[in-house]
Amino acid sequence: MEQLNREYLDVLSEEIANRKDDLLRERMDALHPADIADILDRLDVLEVQYLWNLIKTEERGDVLIELEEDVRVALMANLSDREIAEDLLENLDSDDAVDVVSELPEERAAQVIQQLDTEDREDLLTLLRYPEGTAGALMGTELIRVELDWTVSHAIREMRRQAEDVETVHSVYVVNASGQLLGRLSLKRLLFTANSTKSTIGDLFDEGNTRTVKVDEPDVTVVQMMKKYDLVALPVVDDHNRLLGRITIDDVVDLMEEEAEKDYQLASGLSDEVESDDSLWEMTRARLPWLLIGLSGGLAGAYVIGAFDIERFPSMALFIPLIAAMGGNVGVQSAAIVVQGLATGRKPSDSRLLPRLIKEFSVALLNGAICSAVILGASLALGYGWSLSITVSLALIAVIIFAALFGTFVPLTLDRFKIDPALATGPFITTANDIIGLIIYFGIGVLMAA
Amino acid sequence: MEQLNREYLDVLSEEIANRKDDLLRERMDALHPADIADILDRLDVLEVQYLWNLIKTEERGDVLIELEEDVRVALMANLSDREIAEDLLENLDSDDAVDVVSELPEERAAQVIQQLDTEDREDLLTLLRYPEGTAGALMGTELIRVELDWTVSHAIREMRRQAEDVETVHSVYVVNASGQLLGRLSLKRLLFTANSTKSTIGDLFDEGNTRTVKVDEPDVTVVQMMKKYDLVALPVVDDHNRLLGRITIDDVVDLMEEEAEKDYQLASGLSDEVESDDSLWEMTRARLPWLLIGLSGGLAGAYVIGAFDIERFPSMALFIPLIAAMGGNVGVQSAAIVVQGLATGRKPSDSRLLPRLIKEFSVALLNGAICSAVILGASLALGYGWSLSITVSLALIAVIIFAALFGTFVPLTLDRFKIDPALATGPFITTANDIIGLIIYFGIGVLMAA
Repeated sequence: MEQLNREYLDVLSEEIANRKDDLLRERMDALHPADIADILDRLDVLEVQYLWNLIKTEERGDVLIELEEDVRVALMANLSDREIAEDLLENLDSDDAVDVVSELPEERAAQVIQQLDTEDREDLLTLLRYPEGTAGALMGTELIRVELDWTVSHAIREMRRQAEDVETVHSVYVVNASGQLLGRLSLKRLLFTANSTKSTIGDLFDEGNTRTVKVDEPDVTVVQMMKKYDLVALPVVDDHNRLLGRITIDDVVDLMEEEAEKDYQLASGLSDEVESDDSLWEMTRARLPWLLIGLSGGLAGAYVIGAFDIERFPSMALFIPLIAAMGGNVGVQSAAIVVQGLATGRKPSDSRLLPRLIKEFSVALLNGAICSAVILGASLALGYGWSLSITVSLALIAVIIFAALFGTFVPLTLDRFKIDPALATGPFITTANDIIGLIIYFGIGVLMAA
Repeated sequence: MEQLNREYLDVLSEEIANRKDDLLRERMDALHPADIADILDRLDVLEVQYLWNLIKTEERGDVLIELEEDVRVALMANLSDREIAEDLLENLDSDDAVDVVSELPEERAAQVIQQLDTEDREDLLTLLRYPEGTAGALMGTELIRVELDWTVSHAIREMRRQAEDVETVHSVYVVNASGQLLGRLSLKRLLFTANSTKSTIGDLFDEGNTRTVKVDEPDVTVVQMMKKYDLVALPVVDDHNRLLGRITIDDVVDLMEEEAEKDYQLASGLSDEVESDDSLWEMTRARLPWLLIGLSGGLAGAYVIGAFDIERFPSMALFIPLIAAMGGNVGVQSAAIVVQGLATGRKPSDSRLLPRLIKEFSVALLNGAICSAVILGASLALGYGWSLSITVSLALIAVIIFAALFGTFVPLTLDRFKIDPALATGPFITTANDIIGLIIYFGIGVLMAA
């Protein structure tokens, strides 16, 4: 596509203002739905409305699911129930249709679902019942299934019929008469033996080597399996191994990306989903909560320093930033390693608390000893005197060890209570370690002064 | 597979110690290569050596590429050039073979390549020439291509021959006699018209709708395209549109994951790839560089505070942690938004410097004003007096604005000079903003005292 830049958007706006429908329709026809969505994301509400009606009806669903959430919500508010049902949902894969319906207000969703034909409606209602975060919530029901005892030629006829509803054929699944999954049929294999009308599916298929996921398993399991075994599609089954649907790699890629962004944002002190083209108020709101936590931490810090008699030992003030920064840095490092270990899920044995804490303690001891020695030398060399230098150096090793243990302990504990461990990274750990670091520093200061 | 826990590994170690070859061979045969790799990653070197020889020869390549790098390197050091070439490389897709060879010392790599047969050798040498970070370095040459004027039945015969080398058939590519890519052939379509011997490929294929990437384009473009257009395979062409190879989604998924991990680690102050099961020294080394930066920052902070006459105004010390923490937090937030915007690449217009800085300034002004008002009220309420409260409050808004601009400016500038902008997040920004925040705070303090 042409580079999507300001100039291109200005041309479009101009054409919309001048109602150049034919030209615009031609432009839209030439674009991939994802590119149309990119454009709509950047036009204003009225322009979006106008352009929407010039997009081919059968492409609108695919454009809709690629829009940013706020644009999509605004757009759907202006469509009739019938348009949403017939023009959009019926042209979408069932998993995407579920996502769209889930974003509607409850009452509206019910009205839209009423407009669907019986089969689509039942499909959708079944899918809506799976709780978010499970394999069921990720799956679609569009797939191609053949039965074990069909002849190849009968199977091909059946597949042709089923394939009308399926955009990309990832796999052909082989089931028995009760719908239990037996295996997969490779298209490659089918293609190269397709001449025979005597052989049955049973002669061709890959028995037993098919990985499946249960419908109520968590979506992280799905991500891990598809990544680990390089799968493009993963069949979903119920407790009796009956084939219910399939999950495709593109949905898993989107999920991975969302998770990575969320963790990164939490680690950086951004709440909410925030992007660089959000409005001023959205950007402010995404940052403010963590800043207010930081402020409270700062006030607590002021209290700690005030409780110690800073006026008697004003030189203690010099190393406040160093102690606070090191506590924060070490805590974030430790927490990040835990969060990442939990996210990749490849190290089940490492999520046990005690061995992790012992290892973290050793790493911290080593880092602490090195940093402590460096600061003792540097501080003496810079002429800060023995008493202050020893205080800082002792406080530093204590702070590093404490911060490392705290940074490890908190996310592991959150995870145990099924709370997202990434919450523990970023400003939360930094702020907590700031305060604790100051208490340790001034505590040692008091002991040294005594 | 059985849960990969300590108990299972202990059983394996026991069986290895007792040389239960048949039992072990049976276990390995039943496992997916990725699962075998998980096991080898956790056994000790001698156990890995032993178990390696019990894995089916044709599966060893697939196990090898799933191993962690240090385990793989240690293992390959003990294999002969011939074993690496014949047992491993020849069973791997060309893109994976390139990755394996790239990890060998240069001289060793040349010796191994000599052991390959002519065709594989030339393939590999060609692929090795593409620089890291380009589409060429990600692609494999295994694909199925048919020519436009072949009949369907001839094409199927040819495809059957080619398919022997291709593990998963993602797409069938249609080329002309000079090897230029014309489009794709859907297996679905081919399957359902395969009876005809008269129709040619030209009658069936999807013209013009095939997305391609040039061999020298950066890998981020590949990731963006495959994500945006939900592709499972992406053909790679040269400047004359000749088909050179294809990139598959599993490699892109791995790349996405590596990038996300790297950004997260940089934001958390971890250098190097570090995982929770690395050795004590590896873990220490991954953290130490950033801690030493933090230490230097702390010493610089001590210098700033010392330069101001802290003994005359010791109460200024109370809010040092607050100012330092807020500068750090705001800087990291701003930098993270820029880094994420650059990584997703969906907002080209937003990478321009000036508009971004203006927007960031507005957000910071709003956040700064709110935080500043809060701290003024809180500080007065807690009895810190007018003079100190006003100093802190003024310094805070200045620090927030400055930190936001700095946090935005640095990663954008790094990006312009083709340096990874994620380097600018985490401890670097925090440390710089700590120092600058202190200068601003004490600067205002001096003005207020005058």
